[in-house]
Amino acid sequence: MSQDLGHTTVDLERAARTGAPEVIYGSGKSAQEVIDIARALYEAGQDVLATRIDADKAATVRQSLDWLAFNPHGRLLSFLQPDSPNRPGQREIATSIAVVSAGTSDGAVAEEAAATCEFYGHPVLRVNDVGVAGLHRLLARIDEIRTARVIVVVAGMEGALPSVLGGLVDKPVIAVPTSIGYGAAFGGLAALLGMLNTCASGVSVVNIDNGFGAGYLASMINAL
Amino acid sequence: MSQDLGHTTVDLERAARTGAPEVIYGSGKSAQEVIDIARALYEAGQDVLATRIDADKAATVRQSLDWLAFNPHGRLLSFLQPDSPNRPGQREIATSIAVVSAGTSDGAVAEEAAATCEFYGHPVLRVNDVGVAGLHRLLARIDEIRTARVIVVVAGMEGALPSVLGGLVDKPVIAVPTSIGYGAAFGGLAALLGMLNTCASGVSVVNIDNGFGAGYLASMINAL
Amino acid sequence: MSQDLGHTTVDLERAARTGAPEVIYGSGKSAQEVIDIARALYEAGQDVLATRIDADKAATVRQSLDWLAFNPHGRLLSFLQPDSPNRPGQREIATSIAVVSAGTSDGAVAEEAAATCEFYGHPVLRVNDVGVAGLHRLLARIDEIRTARVIVVVAGMEGALPSVLGGLVDKPVIAVPTSIGYGAAFGGLAALLGMLNTCASGVSVVNIDNGFGAGYLASMINAL
Amino acid sequence: MSQDLGHTTVDLERAARTGAPEVIYGSGKSAQEVIDIARALYEAGQDVLATRIDADKAATVRQSLDWLAFNPHGRLLSFLQPDSPNRPGQREIATSIAVVSAGTSDGAVAEEAAATCEFYGHPVLRVNDVGVAGLHRLLARIDEIRTARVIVVVAGMEGALPSVLGGLVDKPVIAVPTSIGYGAAFGGLAALLGMLNTCASGVSVVNIDNGFGAGYLASMINAL
Amino acid sequence: MSQDLGHTTVDLERAARTGAPEVIYGSGKSAQEVIDIARALYEAGQDVLATRIDADKAATVRQSLDWLAFNPHGRLLSFLQPDSPNRPGQREIATSIAVVSAGTSDGAVAEEAAATCEFYGHPVLRVNDVGVAGLHRLLARIDEIRTARVIVVVAGMEGALPSVLGGLVDKPVIAVPTSIGYGAAFGGLAALLGMLNTCASGVSVVNIDNGFGAGYLASMINAL
Amino acid sequence: MSQDLGHTTVDLERAARTGAPEVIYGSGKSAQEVIDIARALYEAGQDVLATRIDADKAATVRQSLDWLAFNPHGRLLSFLQPDSPNRPGQREIATSIAVVSAGTSDGAVAEEAAATCEFYGHPVLRVNDVGVAGLHRLLARIDEIRTARVIVVVAGMEGALPSVLGGLVDKPVIAVPTSIGYGAAFGGLAALLGMLNTCASGVSVVNIDNGFGAGYLASMINAL
Amino acid sequence: MSQDLGHTTVDLERAARTGAPEVIYGSGKSAQEVIDIARALYEAGQDVLATRIDADKAATVRQSLDWLAFNPHGRLLSFLQPDSPNRPGQREIATSIAVVSAGTSDGAVAEEAAATCEFYGHPVLRVNDVGVAGLHRLLARIDEIRTARVIVVVAGMEGALPSVLGGLVDKPVIAVPTSIGYGAAFGGLAALLGMLNTCASGVSVVNIDNGFGAGYLASMINAL
Amino acid sequence: MSQDLGHTTVDLERAARTGAPEVIYGSGKSAQEVIDIARALYEAGQDVLATRIDADKAATVRQSLDWLAFNPHGRLLSFLQPDSPNRPGQREIATSIAVVSAGTSDGAVAEEAAATCEFYGHPVLRVNDVGVAGLHRLLARIDEIRTARVIVVVAGMEGALPSVLGGLVDKPVIAVPTSIGYGAAFGGLAALLGMLNTCASGVSVVNIDNGFGAGYLASMINAL
Repeated sequence: MSQDLGHTTVDLERAARTGAPEVIYGSGKSAQEVIDIARALYEAGQDVLATRIDADKAATVRQSLDWLAFNPHGRLLSFLQPDSPNRPGQREIATSIAVVSAGTSDGAVAEEAAATCEFYGHPVLRVNDVGVAGLHRLLARIDEIRTARVIVVVAGMEGALPSVLGGLVDKPVIAVPTSIGYGAAFGGLAALLGMLNTCASGVSVVNIDNGFGAGYLASMINAL
Repeated sequence: MSQDLGHTTVDLERAARTGAPEVIYGSGKSAQEVIDIARALYEAGQDVLATRIDADKAATVRQSLDWLAFNPHGRLLSFLQPDSPNRPGQREIATSIAVVSAGTSDGAVAEEAAATCEFYGHPVLRVNDVGVAGLHRLLARIDEIRTARVIVVVAGMEGALPSVLGGLVDKPVIAVPTSIGYGAAFGGLAALLGMLNTCASGVSVVNIDNGFGAGYLASMINAL
Repeated sequence: MSQDLGHTTVDLERAARTGAPEVIYGSGKSAQEVIDIARALYEAGQDVLATRIDADKAATVRQSLDWLAFNPHGRLLSFLQPDSPNRPGQREIATSIAVVSAGTSDGAVAEEAAATCEFYGHPVLRVNDVGVAGLHRLLARIDEIRTARVIVVVAGMEGALPSVLGGLVDKPVIAVPTSIGYGAAFGGLAALLGMLNTCASGVSVVNIDNGFGAGYLASMINAL
Repeated sequence: MSQDLGHTTVDLERAARTGAPEVIYGSGKSAQEVIDIARALYEAGQDVLATRIDADKAATVRQSLDWLAFNPHGRLLSFLQPDSPNRPGQREIATSIAVVSAGTSDGAVAEEAAATCEFYGHPVLRVNDVGVAGLHRLLARIDEIRTARVIVVVAGMEGALPSVLGGLVDKPVIAVPTSIGYGAAFGGLAALLGMLNTCASGVSVVNIDNGFGAGYLASMINAL
Repeated sequence: MSQDLGHTTVDLERAARTGAPEVIYGSGKSAQEVIDIARALYEAGQDVLATRIDADKAATVRQSLDWLAFNPHGRLLSFLQPDSPNRPGQREIATSIAVVSAGTSDGAVAEEAAATCEFYGHPVLRVNDVGVAGLHRLLARIDEIRTARVIVVVAGMEGALPSVLGGLVDKPVIAVPTSIGYGAAFGGLAALLGMLNTCASGVSVVNIDNGFGAGYLASMINAL
Repeated sequence: MSQDLGHTTVDLERAARTGAPEVIYGSGKSAQEVIDIARALYEAGQDVLATRIDADKAATVRQSLDWLAFNPHGRLLSFLQPDSPNRPGQREIATSIAVVSAGTSDGAVAEEAAATCEFYGHPVLRVNDVGVAGLHRLLARIDEIRTARVIVVVAGMEGALPSVLGGLVDKPVIAVPTSIGYGAAFGGLAALLGMLNTCASGVSVVNIDNGFGAGYLASMINAL
Repeated sequence: MSQDLGHTTVDLERAARTGAPEVIYGSGKSAQEVIDIARALYEAGQDVLATRIDADKAATVRQSLDWLAFNPHGRLLSFLQPDSPNRPGQREIATSIAVVSAGTSDGAVAEEAAATCEFYGHPVLRVNDVGVAGLHRLLARIDEIRTARVIVVVAGMEGALPSVLGGLVDKPVIAVPTSIGYGAAFGGLAALLGMLNTCASGVSVVNIDNGFGAGYLASMINAL
Repeated sequence: MSQDLGHTTVDLERAARTGAPEVIYGSGKSAQEVIDIARALYEAGQDVLATRIDADKAATVRQSLDWLAFNPHGRLLSFLQPDSPNRPGQREIATSIAVVSAGTSDGAVAEEAAATCEFYGHPVLRVNDVGVAGLHRLLARIDEIRTARVIVVVAGMEGALPSVLGGLVDKPVIAVPTSIGYGAAFGGLAALLGMLNTCASGVSVVNIDNGFGAGYLASMINAL
């Protein structure tokens, strides 16, 4: 089942097929297109999540759809139906997801990941700015991180944090390279290659800056 | 705790830290180095797995260590201690891991992934040669694949299979690009980029040809 | 025969040689240069098509040449001579061209392709937002698509749609990678490589975002 | 309908779906795998084509399957069923396909393309070594080339021939970059990029050295 | 002999050493830095040429140094000393340099090359927009081009013009790739690689968009 | 010991561990984040250095923290505690660091390096615009450069200066590629590769435009 | 006028058009193809030059065509007709071409360039192993080099020699990057980019390892 | 002063200029060329070091020059003159250089670095196989490493070790990426980019696999 909006064919049966409704990737879509799709999902009784929405586009969308909440740091618009199973208190999820970032500048991507996990109903442990150049910062919090069932690691520049963390835990690590850096960082390529070549086992990688993708996958694993 | 062999510092406490003992990456190591490390692990009472071992090197290693079993298609040497929890029948793992390959030529990498899962004690469902150019082959087996708890997808060339499969299941998908292809495949780069840019959610990626890494991570998730 | 405008040598015999008059590639040309070339073609009795014209440049050009029509979504200026064979009703073209896009954000490139086909007198079937992550959207329309004689497929990100579609039809597929995506999409490179490495037969590829080129070629094939 | 050989899932309904049976891509497959798939196709009453078969592998395969014919220059094994519509004389194809190569060293890829066209029953016009550095060689044969309905152009190094030829004809041009060249040719990348950026209209591109793909597509277009 | 301006060490003996005074590369330099260096050269009795000067920077510089002439299309500021040998009429240069461009959009780089030649006292033949997709435009002017002693060829996109022209003349060809194009042009990379891999002999290449460099070298050769 | 600011985990023990306190990389951080971290370091009695601070951000930061000094050319904010050992006169450093730049446009990166050295208390010899195209400029100052104990060389474009200088001195050379250049400079890649492949011994390389990193390392070596 | 050998269309009028007969690029051609083309040129009364011929292929070719001379270091087969104007003593060429190499390992490419110049009748000055890490070696021979009318510079690794030499002479410099180097040399890419970004004027570049191309162009310039 | 061997211009004054005699880079040189250069250095009373010499070439060279010692793991030939200051006991070097490798497979490059340091008379601390996936192995030896005055770190794959180690020490770190790895390691590119983008200060980088360069530079720094 899908709904044809002309510019978009909304996939209304995705929730049934994959366990979660279609998510709106906001970049490259006009505010009107976001509004149209969000409304179609809303009217079909589905939860709504839109990513990569900057403050201006969020304001325009919310003029039409004021029931959408905006997370400016994570650049997300979201809405949970009154009876959504993802609403806090609706179901028991005992285990949490850790979202760990290497540097302050990686914060927006980490927040996109963390808020995505929360949208799907999962408790999140946020640990920021514990990159490998000051190892004691990570070691000081490693026991806390070990309580999580899945770990999202967000890092730019050389992207070494997943390798170090992956060697210290017995949980799956989802690595998110970021475009933070300059020169030979080549827009996140250095971090991406570093993570793909990690010498630690139990680490997999998503696209550069793809906080949503990591949060979604972490939620899927934590729900197993 | 680690053991210094001169050329190698064997990480004997990795099992305690990450849930699985150190694995020997065979490429670039001499047969003697493989023998030394395997023996150190063996004598420490740990299970032994060595990857990327071609037939010649396997033969040399097994002249010294005949208790190692060789899987020629997956290029793996392995040994499970008599009391290893990973031995069949030792523990109950009700859910299986699906290892799905796009083409016949992707078979060696898929076997590396599947045999790795089995080494860690997990039942495996093998589905080969169901690439997207003949979609009905995949659709014919999708219900079977949906019974797995984690899905490893192995594909070369354009690497489109994880995108299609990711849109049909509600389980985590671990995508393995392979170096199969020619010309603008650039040794697996096309498949790697394709998988990183997948429009499906719930997909993460490991290094090109890294069947072991995918199998290890799938095992870790299936054991959660 | 060509006309020298100083900055430009208008190729007035191209129609005789290749079946279609010279087309103005608007990017990197000033409004005045577009005006000069369009007028030269017009005065030579030829149809006029200019691509990659943004709204501002279109407005400036149309102040001088108000007989040009503007398609803002496809970024095209066009004019058909009163006796142009490409005018609707002028000749009988029984078969149509399908222009299929993977995502909403690919819409502008798909429109450039579709409008180009129409400029050359061909009926177009537009099918939007049927990317591979929601396969049923494509399958729901596959019979309709199969009625076309040539198929243009427009996709960004991993660019997998031509592979899937190519395996479902017995018609030539012209694949257009788009620059839609982020991170490891590298401005359309991932989609381009994916399409070049397609495991489906009967697929060829044009430059990133080259909707015009695909539409032109599709028209040429449909006119055979 | 498909047949499971373990290593391979033969797509026996591809002919019904796309107009041509599955083709065996020989590179990366063992001789035994080629034999298994070829026999399965043969026994299903389908025509057989295997590409990228070197002389040694061809000899091994033909020891088991002596009904396969070998084209050493084009590296193809092929067989047409007695009642195949592609057998010479079986059906009337009035128009031909031109296969044009830029240099002597591009000959093997051009032959792969030409022989593929002939396998599908199409007359082929071969024009070799007419690269742009000696333009008169091309111009001397341009009228002959213009009699074809589709044109395959094979070129390495800078890959300029499709641009020049595309500006001289009113027929679709399928460009095949080859890996011929050295240094900054980067294994065919220079030719590939050149062809993708062609200033001529009506040109599309297939993978580096993909003579089969170009021949297949040309045949599909010529059969329209 | 050199003059230290703090930010710059002006190379006042370059003319003696290489036959031409230091040239100011304007991009990345402030207007004040351009003024300082231009004045130092002027006061040392040398001719002055500054490249890559946009209109705003030119206006600022000329407020201080009104003896500099501005060429807006070629983005050059220049001054010839009253007794400069490069002044028209000062010396007899019988042979000319041809500057040939492939497309209208390549015009600014071609003008940079042509004006550079004229600055050094050489007669220039400008031939614009004769790219290979309309070969007759080039052939119509080939005899004129053959009268030059050196040929500069400026082309973007696939950069095929130097290959074609190089095969038609017996004079050195200096090829200038431009950043004109989109998608897989990658900022001039496609044209650059095409030119480096030319199958024509007698062609060499300068940096992308380096009209000055080509003009300088052509002048040096024409002065031999 | 570290201080958790929420967005940032300030590494207050870095000075004890590595000999120098944490440095604030300003790019990608908000003015408020810079203020928070600078204040935390200040209040912990540590020296403060922030790099990549443009004039606007510097003004905002200094409204809150007027004790920070701004170096606009080097884009640095800094503060030395009254009892800092790096204050001039606090300790005896007899040897100096030479910071040598190839061109005027490399000046900002060179200044970042030089000011970093001075922040850590080292005398600096600045030598600007002595690139290899005018070798005598370098040779004129080579004896002066030889008095330094460590040499930082800053160059864009082809990045050849470290090779030439490295062959003329018996001191360690730290090469800094810059993003100065155009076309095939690819944002500093050409200079980076040139420096990594230097035929001179005793040369190592830092990231593109990383003047701070070179200055820090030079200071560390000069303090040995 | 051209001769069709089936695999090759020999361009027999190239000498008339470009001043020099077609040259055989030996790489990727069989010995028999080289023999066929060489014989066709020979019988048409033209001089014969074949490049990239290894010792084995040379021996095979010379079994059929013993009048060809082999230069093993430069990998060239050549023959001058008895009445060739390029024979020593046939015409007066007063000026010479300098071929300068940076390192011993660049010798084969330098020899290809030098022998090409001699084939076309030009005196050559060979200067080997004067790379920039030992500048005095170059300076010791600079006056000798300045006597040449054109300078070919061959260098691998960082490719800095053309920049240094270009700043010391008033003659055109043709730079040849070589594939000598390792790691980040990327098969000559570092040297190629370095040369394209040279800060010296009067330098142009040919393909990696293209000694023939540089020698041909130098000869063309020296003959002006 | 230099000696012309025809193929090579030996730089006999390099020791005077840079503190160390010319070193022979063996790759791409014939055994005879190595012999010639080694003998020239020997006869000039200089120490001899040749790198990248495989076992076969070493044997050939030593047949002529049996006074050269061969280090097969580090692939080095070397000779110290009887009065060389680098001979053990000749001078007092109190501080040592640490050479730390991440994995067993990095051993050959680490040995090249370590043996180079010893050739120049420096005590070396070898620490092998302490990569970041088993952090405790590094931490167990960090106090030992801190006793060194300079640290060379050799790592392939993601190359994260210099970042971690750089944050734990107050000494200069010279990072050597190796070509160890597969797939997206791209021959050492991933490690190289990782090291260039390190978030640790005090780290600089040499070419991929350049153990000699790191050892040379470390010796130069340790000798300050």
